[in-house]
Amino acid sequence: MTSPFVLPSVADLHDAALANRLQHVIDHKTKPLGSLGLLERLALRLGVILGTESPVLHAPQMLVCAGDHGLAARGVSAFPSDVTWQMVENFLAGGAAVSVLARQHGLGLTVVDCGVAKPIAARDAAPGQPRLLLRKVAPGTQDASVGPAMSAEQCAQALANGVEVVRGLPGNALLLGEMGIANTSVASLLLARLAGLPLAEVTGAGTGLDAAGIERKRAVLQQALDANAGATSPLDALAALGGYEVATLVGAVLQAAAERRVIVVDGFITSAAVLVASRIAPQVLQRCVFAHRSGERGHSLMLAQMQAEPLLDLGLRLGEGSGAALAWPLLQSACAVLREMASFESAGVATQTA
Amino acid sequence: MTSPFVLPSVADLHDAALANRLQHVIDHKTKPLGSLGLLERLALRLGVILGTESPVLHAPQMLVCAGDHGLAARGVSAFPSDVTWQMVENFLAGGAAVSVLARQHGLGLTVVDCGVAKPIAARDAAPGQPRLLLRKVAPGTQDASVGPAMSAEQCAQALANGVEVVRGLPGNALLLGEMGIANTSVASLLLARLAGLPLAEVTGAGTGLDAAGIERKRAVLQQALDANAGATSPLDALAALGGYEVATLVGAVLQAAAERRVIVVDGFITSAAVLVASRIAPQVLQRCVFAHRSGERGHSLMLAQMQAEPLLDLGLRLGEGSGAALAWPLLQSACAVLREMASFESAGVATQTA
Repeated sequence: MTSPFVLPSVADLHDAALANRLQHVIDHKTKPLGSLGLLERLALRLGVILGTESPVLHAPQMLVCAGDHGLAARGVSAFPSDVTWQMVENFLAGGAAVSVLARQHGLGLTVVDCGVAKPIAARDAAPGQPRLLLRKVAPGTQDASVGPAMSAEQCAQALANGVEVVRGLPGNALLLGEMGIANTSVASLLLARLAGLPLAEVTGAGTGLDAAGIERKRAVLQQALDANAGATSPLDALAALGGYEVATLVGAVLQAAAERRVIVVDGFITSAAVLVASRIAPQVLQRCVFAHRSGERGHSLMLAQMQAEPLLDLGLRLGEGSGAALAWPLLQSACAVLREMASFESAGVATQTA
Repeated sequence: MTSPFVLPSVADLHDAALANRLQHVIDHKTKPLGSLGLLERLALRLGVILGTESPVLHAPQMLVCAGDHGLAARGVSAFPSDVTWQMVENFLAGGAAVSVLARQHGLGLTVVDCGVAKPIAARDAAPGQPRLLLRKVAPGTQDASVGPAMSAEQCAQALANGVEVVRGLPGNALLLGEMGIANTSVASLLLARLAGLPLAEVTGAGTGLDAAGIERKRAVLQQALDANAGATSPLDALAALGGYEVATLVGAVLQAAAERRVIVVDGFITSAAVLVASRIAPQVLQRCVFAHRSGERGHSLMLAQMQAEPLLDLGLRLGEGSGAALAWPLLQSACAVLREMASFESAGVATQTA
């Protein structure tokens, strides 16, 4: 695939001296060695990403990318495609889970129409309210079970949109969210293709299919893999198997990584975007915090592909960015522990004797 | 044991009509059925505890109970007993993990000297700062490996102190924390005695013992069980196997439950206090939210005794209340979802079709 633009390049963050200094700071806090578990590894990671022993997260941004899918007409989802635009309206009106959680945690909320089937009307947002960006490449993808979901040019446009949207966002942390009826199908397809895993292992219930529904979904996804057998590179697979919201997220992830933002990954679909991005630029993963292990079948396999260690395991399978928002306070806690906890020395506390 | 005071009585919260109404509200929010996983069960629980479909948590209080243990002289901990008072000072100075996390989440922080060996000086606290309460029954317990850790009267005094302390706290949520070198030994003993589990399964590394250290600890704990073989009722076991901070927490839990506060349980030691309280008044468990599964060996078995479904699993083994504080935003999220999310009807979103 030839891109009309150059994808952001992502530098290697490797800095052994900084990592050692961070580990030293963590190990000398007033607590038994390692006793904050995963929170300590999170603190180390955030320090490395932000390049400091005193990391401060500021102006975190939740980016919810929405799009529709030709595959939806094949009955791969428990909900009709109309729910995509209805939920976009719900995000903006403040009634969706991600709206509620973003408000709770003071996350800026930007909803992007990347390729929703229905026309979405532009509108102004009051400061602090959810904001809509219109970056529709086309009104939904083509049916991937009979051919490519997007052309290479359409995919490149969605990638470029993601880059441009992140460039315009403040802050040093990007939380990933998405909406698109049938997009667990897209995530399953990308995982199957890029990791070489069988569809039977990576196809799940999505929003609520029963066993027979999952079997039908799997058969349709097999047709999509067969119809796009030649699309094996990350960008070719992305274009062929689709998702304007996924491609926009891939661009967003690459740009956020290039800018050294902390990237908070939500569930199955945003993880698929990160999987694609990491196959283009592996250093992307240095910037990622995986918020949770989803209840959607396939997510654990996806996480394993990226050696991810998710923070939460609550059986979530909603998407939208809801899991990323729920995990957000843990990132703030990890930074606060680094910045504010006393050391054994400063607090005059005795160290381990045994 | 005869108590000089009457333990708070804890009513049954069972209200099928309210639970059904709450489940209906949750099921009609704009999300696939059940897709918020454990957060939905948490929302249901909080609604039942607070008796409303629109629960609001206010003025949450972190209660950190501290005490020393005669067993510490037997080398059951990786840290010396002096660390108990040193950490109390660290809590109050704002440098400990629980201080940092309480500040992050706006939790009131009360530290209680329940039985610290060293004299702790009274002091005033500015509003919003950590507060110290002196409720020392004795300067540490007796060595439980040779006889009862506390007398029945001392234990009753600690229980009464816990009741009285909670009575004086504002808000409708109590987060449990503790500090006491050697108190994982106490928790292991209580679990072994009350659940009839072998010490080999419930004795862990605490603050950082190696394998040989754990074996020595287990042998000392066996002596404690043997020396207190007759102490089989919950209150007798509590007095014999000890912990002024644990007994104070038991009183606090019973009082908080009687007042229908939400009780947020931290790790292994506070879970032991809840185990004792629940053997006195099983309805206590209706009010409890278990914050996390600790990395300490035995905690999973303790949680199973109470059919607990912990929110986090981060490999924490610090105590202090740090895990309860880390989980706190999830409780706020569960309430916010109940109160603020739109329904399919109100948002005009189509429901499931498959």
